[in-house]
Amino acid sequence: MNFASDNWAGAHPKIAQSLVDSASGFAAPYGASELDQQLQQRFNELFEREVAVFFVATGTAANALALASVYRPGGVVFCHRESHLLEAEGGAPEFLSHGARFVAVDGQFAKIDPVQLKQAIARFPAEFVHAGQAMAISITQATEAGTLYQADEILAIAAIAKANNLPLHMDGARFANAAVALGLTPAEMTWKLGVDILSFGATKNGCWCAEAIVFMHPQLAKAFPYIRKQAAQLISKSRFIACQFEAYLRDALWLQLASHANAMASRLQAGIIDSAYARMAWPAGANEVFCIFDQQVAEQLRQQGAQFYAINPPSDLPNLVKEHEILVRLVTSYATTTEDIAQFLTLLATVGSSHSQ
Amino acid sequence: MNFASDNWAGAHPKIAQSLVDSASGFAAPYGASELDQQLQQRFNELFEREVAVFFVATGTAANALALASVYRPGGVVFCHRESHLLEAEGGAPEFLSHGARFVAVDGQFAKIDPVQLKQAIARFPAEFVHAGQAMAISITQATEAGTLYQADEILAIAAIAKANNLPLHMDGARFANAAVALGLTPAEMTWKLGVDILSFGATKNGCWCAEAIVFMHPQLAKAFPYIRKQAAQLISKSRFIACQFEAYLRDALWLQLASHANAMASRLQAGIIDSAYARMAWPAGANEVFCIFDQQVAEQLRQQGAQFYAINPPSDLPNLVKEHEILVRLVTSYATTTEDIAQFLTLLATVGSSHSQ
Amino acid sequence: MNFASDNWAGAHPKIAQSLVDSASGFAAPYGASELDQQLQQRFNELFEREVAVFFVATGTAANALALASVYRPGGVVFCHRESHLLEAEGGAPEFLSHGARFVAVDGQFAKIDPVQLKQAIARFPAEFVHAGQAMAISITQATEAGTLYQADEILAIAAIAKANNLPLHMDGARFANAAVALGLTPAEMTWKLGVDILSFGATKNGCWCAEAIVFMHPQLAKAFPYIRKQAAQLISKSRFIACQFEAYLRDALWLQLASHANAMASRLQAGIIDSAYARMAWPAGANEVFCIFDQQVAEQLRQQGAQFYAINPPSDLPNLVKEHEILVRLVTSYATTTEDIAQFLTLLATVGSSHSQ
Amino acid sequence: MNFASDNWAGAHPKIAQSLVDSASGFAAPYGASELDQQLQQRFNELFEREVAVFFVATGTAANALALASVYRPGGVVFCHRESHLLEAEGGAPEFLSHGARFVAVDGQFAKIDPVQLKQAIARFPAEFVHAGQAMAISITQATEAGTLYQADEILAIAAIAKANNLPLHMDGARFANAAVALGLTPAEMTWKLGVDILSFGATKNGCWCAEAIVFMHPQLAKAFPYIRKQAAQLISKSRFIACQFEAYLRDALWLQLASHANAMASRLQAGIIDSAYARMAWPAGANEVFCIFDQQVAEQLRQQGAQFYAINPPSDLPNLVKEHEILVRLVTSYATTTEDIAQFLTLLATVGSSHSQ
Repeated sequence: MNFASDNWAGAHPKIAQSLVDSASGFAAPYGASELDQQLQQRFNELFEREVAVFFVATGTAANALALASVYRPGGVVFCHRESHLLEAEGGAPEFLSHGARFVAVDGQFAKIDPVQLKQAIARFPAEFVHAGQAMAISITQATEAGTLYQADEILAIAAIAKANNLPLHMDGARFANAAVALGLTPAEMTWKLGVDILSFGATKNGCWCAEAIVFMHPQLAKAFPYIRKQAAQLISKSRFIACQFEAYLRDALWLQLASHANAMASRLQAGIIDSAYARMAWPAGANEVFCIFDQQVAEQLRQQGAQFYAINPPSDLPNLVKEHEILVRLVTSYATTTEDIAQFLTLLATVGSSHSQ
Repeated sequence: MNFASDNWAGAHPKIAQSLVDSASGFAAPYGASELDQQLQQRFNELFEREVAVFFVATGTAANALALASVYRPGGVVFCHRESHLLEAEGGAPEFLSHGARFVAVDGQFAKIDPVQLKQAIARFPAEFVHAGQAMAISITQATEAGTLYQADEILAIAAIAKANNLPLHMDGARFANAAVALGLTPAEMTWKLGVDILSFGATKNGCWCAEAIVFMHPQLAKAFPYIRKQAAQLISKSRFIACQFEAYLRDALWLQLASHANAMASRLQAGIIDSAYARMAWPAGANEVFCIFDQQVAEQLRQQGAQFYAINPPSDLPNLVKEHEILVRLVTSYATTTEDIAQFLTLLATVGSSHSQ
Repeated sequence: MNFASDNWAGAHPKIAQSLVDSASGFAAPYGASELDQQLQQRFNELFEREVAVFFVATGTAANALALASVYRPGGVVFCHRESHLLEAEGGAPEFLSHGARFVAVDGQFAKIDPVQLKQAIARFPAEFVHAGQAMAISITQATEAGTLYQADEILAIAAIAKANNLPLHMDGARFANAAVALGLTPAEMTWKLGVDILSFGATKNGCWCAEAIVFMHPQLAKAFPYIRKQAAQLISKSRFIACQFEAYLRDALWLQLASHANAMASRLQAGIIDSAYARMAWPAGANEVFCIFDQQVAEQLRQQGAQFYAINPPSDLPNLVKEHEILVRLVTSYATTTEDIAQFLTLLATVGSSHSQ
Repeated sequence: MNFASDNWAGAHPKIAQSLVDSASGFAAPYGASELDQQLQQRFNELFEREVAVFFVATGTAANALALASVYRPGGVVFCHRESHLLEAEGGAPEFLSHGARFVAVDGQFAKIDPVQLKQAIARFPAEFVHAGQAMAISITQATEAGTLYQADEILAIAAIAKANNLPLHMDGARFANAAVALGLTPAEMTWKLGVDILSFGATKNGCWCAEAIVFMHPQLAKAFPYIRKQAAQLISKSRFIACQFEAYLRDALWLQLASHANAMASRLQAGIIDSAYARMAWPAGANEVFCIFDQQVAEQLRQQGAQFYAINPPSDLPNLVKEHEILVRLVTSYATTTEDIAQFLTLLATVGSSHSQ
């Protein structure tokens, strides 16, 4: 019953097997192998256009370097207050982008509100050097709250980006889960809506270590090989990432894994909705279920072996969580089983009923 | 006949198998898994003392962050002119250590000459703020020239480090090859001689991606978790590195692989010495053979399928390479076979004899 | 009628004269001159303890480098949402402190609220590497809203700093105005309350260019000469700053100038309170008057020669400014005259009465 | 008898007077005053084209930010081994340019040798990411050895810069001395020869604090206001720099001051050449005389009140200085008098003759 995070799962057998299959033989390092080159082509097909793809070792590196690639002196990046960039990357975005500032923008359920985005950007008028200059907008899909930007919502933000001459970055640590949930292709969820740079994460969806930065406009990535190298993210035996992606994208494995994770989340959500001892904080969009437990119930669930994290309630929902309650995040993955769900819901019923007596 | 570099090889079957074996089940990410913790203990045993170990994704990251961990404002690091830090890390050391300067020190065969080291340090007297302040010394074992620091040579440099209150870093991208060649244990080759921080590389010796920074004095690593995170090198599913190290260190696999690579280099060296069509540039210490070919011979070797790199001759050996010759580096690895060696030497004889007619 | 800012004024005649008097003769550069050394002693007396003093060229440099001196990897600085650090320093604090993050803390009238400060710090628990680590607290005295921290308010924040092992920095760009307004000595307003590092600004109070960083605990400034040099803030002919400070501190000139500026602000405030055509936004604490005008009145005041800036209303006072109104900042300085005030208030009466008809 | 450096002198009376004359009245800060604007125009005239001019507080800032403005990731700057950038700026160039590496190029008398420059650049071939990418060339005029690049020598370097698509920066800390010595106008010594960015120093030539970065192609300076602000070099009451430059450039004061300093150096050189107790190390080009003294003579000169620095002999002139000798630098300035020279030469004769007995 591990719902702590999708990076608690290991690697899917097909990913592991691909590492075995690629282990023998010599190949050029640093992204120059045939397999690396094939993957470049594979990404072109996936995104239905020529893109520039760069592998890095962590999702944080993907986000930070994607934004470093559009560095402007005194630069300011706009992202959601609850974004991974602001909440969980330990200052890497600021450090790796030479001191850019990351400005928190609000909006319900971890999605940037376009009106507030405009207001935030307006605080950095052109030529007003004291405030710094707007540099990029970053959105997360699926969001840190497990919700989804609908296509038109991305379009609205992209329009603001365009109007302000700002590149639009998407943190796609859970890109596959979002694509499956929305029924959109990679192209439809990114450049066709105005996304310029994507952090394409695969680690959370069944890989060991496979993160890519996808530039939708390759000419904007000319200097990126140097940026990646200077940040110590140019992987030596890079085919070890390439071969993970190869297996991940082959036969739509990536979509199957994400479908499974999402289905598990739906099943979990259904159980929560039905339960007398918990309630949803907001509807789950992909593979994360945010729900509210009585603190004692949560405590006992943990004691009985369930693993999950408590989350700080969003500041714009001050009444969401009552006294004696906590907000909890339950994350499913390719490795979550229906048995895990059933076991958890049964445990919830037992613990809850015992507690309510 | 691939002698381009040891990172052209893939991963040893036992490493690949370990990834398969570890792929299922849930485990805490970011270095908190049981396996990660076990590896910390395993490194303590390996180094015969309590050390602090941190995994990162690349050798460049290991070097750059090891040095960033001893950052001093206006800091200056002393390393060999031909070191990887200066020659092949794309500015990552400077960038990740907040602009430290890396000063080239000379010395034969890629080994820092202690006399020149002292002179170099003397150019940065204490309190002379204009020049910056000495911050660290870094040596490479085995060196970029495939040579070895003998224990007493390390001791001499460590004494200079101590006298100047400077930490001593060792770039051990080929640490295993050096340990085997010298017959020294990890402890004997590092802290017992005065090395404070080690980049312990395993990627070049049969792993997919396994690099560790080993702090010999754990109290000096207190801030390092933040340094690593801020540099985007905190691996998500870090047990994927831990399980490589687990297999690598189990049953002395790491020493076997390095022994094999070194033996292949010895065999290659013997063939070069015997050959009428090549000569050694200097004796091979570990798994790299630097030799001199006629340019046309080298060209034909390549056309016949041999892979290797030409290297800029060291500036302190201006007469080493004559006109029409080139300096070539031949690297062996765990994956090099006696057949590879035999085939290459046979080819050299054929090509050489045809050329000399 | 210039109320745009106190840095629109030039230099007081005594400051200018000191530059003339010091212009001849040779003296050691880079802070080593006799005059520089005397000033170190002069600051010791001023602060009633041994302090370490460093001159820099701008107030932004003083703030940014003061905080860079307490750098921790992944560091987070807590400051008020309206602070100069966050609003007007163009990313210099982040850049010069290696990517530290500056977290906005709220509180009325530009003063950090201790309860909110505690909550903000609590979001960065020790050992939680993903969020970064708390590094410093910075307060501004007088604040950006022209208000003042009372001694007990500073004490309360210092207690939080101490409890969290965080250094407390004070941005004293208008330190003199605050000292005069509160009737506190430099010592009483800083280290006696728990302030560790002070940006001691003199430029806004009648100097040409005189900013100092004062470390209350000299042992914490050991590395600072290198930090300043590395940031290109070590002034060549530094006695030109020293001689400004010499005149500034001689015969309490600095307090006289600030007293005058404050008195002018009080007079202006009295006029605003009496006026039917404007109202105070909040009471003026030092030399800045924040008041609310009808937009058309403001526009006509400007057309008639009055100079001042409109300010974004603070987000925690959403009803402060009505439609058709604007929040305006009027800054007085050593150079403001009673005639300026009288002329402005007369103009306000004229313009206001014409507008209200 | 102060020959320590030209920044030991104070400020010329006309510079000091200009500060007095500008001290009253209100003016926009941060480079927006009328005087600041006039100076922009004045620089256009001086350079016979539209240039973009930015004031900063130190020569180190001018050099470091000039190069930061042409930042490329993994960037490498080529400069002379004895350049101020490498020898005396405490890591500011690396830090402020985000970790760029400064590569030492040799050449006689502190002037870059074009052949060696080409070789140095060739070590950073395009697309070879591991080494980093060439980013700029920087030369110093007059050089750190007090010598001068002749026009054709600058042309030769500019041709290499152009061939490699690299901007050419000139460190003009002693620009005036060079211009006077060569009889070249500012335009003739810079953009007409291919110089793209100039650090135009005035502090060493009679100002208190007046350094400017001059971009010969204003369109390349679009982002520079943000770079300067982010580096904390945007001066508050910037007219205090503008008014120094105003006086400096008015009636060719700058050329008069430099002419005087150069004439004093010539006189000093003549005396050294005539002296039996010293010899020139190489001919003086501008206002610095490098000569060789017996160590005991030097010691006694100092004891008798002469001030000067000993200099490390250049590595390419190993036989320049014999045992018991030292290389000494004597710097003249606008403030040096013929009496200073005469007194020094007399003292040298006395000390020397006493020593040689």
